[in-house]
Amino acid sequence: MISISVIGAGQVGTQFCKAINATKNLHLEQWYNRSKIGPENGLDGVDFCNDLMKLNPADLYIIAVSDSAVEAISNALPFEKRLVVHTSGSVALRFLNKKNRKGVFYPLQTFSKTSDLDFVNVPICIETTDKSDRKLLKSVAEALGSPTYFIQSEQRQSLHLSAVFVNNFTNQLYRIAHELTDSEGLEFDILKPLMQETIQKLQKLSPYMAQTGPAIRNDKKTIKQHLKLLERTPKYQKIYEILTQSIQYTHG
Amino acid sequence: MISISVIGAGQVGTQFCKAINATKNLHLEQWYNRSKIGPENGLDGVDFCNDLMKLNPADLYIIAVSDSAVEAISNALPFEKRLVVHTSGSVALRFLNKKNRKGVFYPLQTFSKTSDLDFVNVPICIETTDKSDRKLLKSVAEALGSPTYFIQSEQRQSLHLSAVFVNNFTNQLYRIAHELTDSEGLEFDILKPLMQETIQKLQKLSPYMAQTGPAIRNDKKTIKQHLKLLERTPKYQKIYEILTQSIQYTHG
Repeated sequence: MISISVIGAGQVGTQFCKAINATKNLHLEQWYNRSKIGPENGLDGVDFCNDLMKLNPADLYIIAVSDSAVEAISNALPFEKRLVVHTSGSVALRFLNKKNRKGVFYPLQTFSKTSDLDFVNVPICIETTDKSDRKLLKSVAEALGSPTYFIQSEQRQSLHLSAVFVNNFTNQLYRIAHELTDSEGLEFDILKPLMQETIQKLQKLSPYMAQTGPAIRNDKKTIKQHLKLLERTPKYQKIYEILTQSIQYTHG
Repeated sequence: MISISVIGAGQVGTQFCKAINATKNLHLEQWYNRSKIGPENGLDGVDFCNDLMKLNPADLYIIAVSDSAVEAISNALPFEKRLVVHTSGSVALRFLNKKNRKGVFYPLQTFSKTSDLDFVNVPICIETTDKSDRKLLKSVAEALGSPTYFIQSEQRQSLHLSAVFVNNFTNQLYRIAHELTDSEGLEFDILKPLMQETIQKLQKLSPYMAQTGPAIRNDKKTIKQHLKLLERTPKYQKIYEILTQSIQYTHG
């Protein structure tokens, strides 16, 4: 049984607590949050805590707070030589205080308040200072059902940047499509099978090979028609132009 | 039994022929292509044809050729008063010759050579000049298993534009992420659960509500870090900037 305390009650901390609590061989030792925390955070019968001084011994402490708070929380921990990890995609390992054994346990996924994630779909990127700590982090991730990857800080930053492209930016393109369909009185849902198939194709093809559409065909007539349709939203026109150019540059 | 002839052996024409041929209550009367066509196009025991003059009577002719060829093919058909549809997202209905009954049968999906599509996932957008032809087109789409939508030419153009955003442009963002992960020796596959979840979230939330990440948080430190990581690829830096601005503009 591996005992784990989670620090932070945002979406990442909450999802970790729920998953740990539901997993055989893992024990949720305590759930800490700076402000009031209790069953209203989504779990019953857990040892809630909002005083760092009252943290019990545990095999692992997972810091799941905002990027800017990681260093301060790590400095404030009232113990040493224990295994402490953060969960951020963009904070380097060196921001954790060296009084404890340091690591990163970065879940490469988007978390939401509205639904619980199956950790089978949450790849965990692991980094440690001490190689011997890798094994424990890997065991925890595997117990949760997650695929694991050993990844250094620099790689992790690139991965986080990639995640912004495939998640945040893609979602903004969906938002634009939502506005476009709305403005014509069309249901956004009509686009969902296409969105799904766009990903599905990548089971067999690289994004390079999967590209289609007016940009790669250099179909000037359709591109011109689309730019005209976007006349009233110059910001979206600009995005259309720059992504069209990008596709054409990629495909030379 | 509805008899259908398909004109064109590109990806859309081929997928339609395969699906029609496999569907009870639909009969693939002929499959026309300008150049040589035969079993090597993916179907056995079909009446292949490459002379428009030899097209048999049929209940429906589906023109599935490149946008720029639709008008000429429609003009060249050696018959009149039959139902002729095209399959393009961006060609207006008026480009079909009025000697025949006109319609649009636009599959809102991305087609690939590597795999056959289940038409359950191919919404069909229907438009006709003669209202009485709607029923037949709806029957054909439903026999194929497709959801159907009645959509006018202007709406269809907006829909096609939206499809470019959610498919072609999204795919280019995946391409950029592929380059970023490659350059760090990371597997692109590690991003796939995130790509999937980005869509999954939209079952419950609008793209507006689903947005997360450094742009919407106005996390200047992370944005700066990401722009620095993209220093060697100014084109991607520009895309990062413009989509970050777009998210921030959307969310005020």
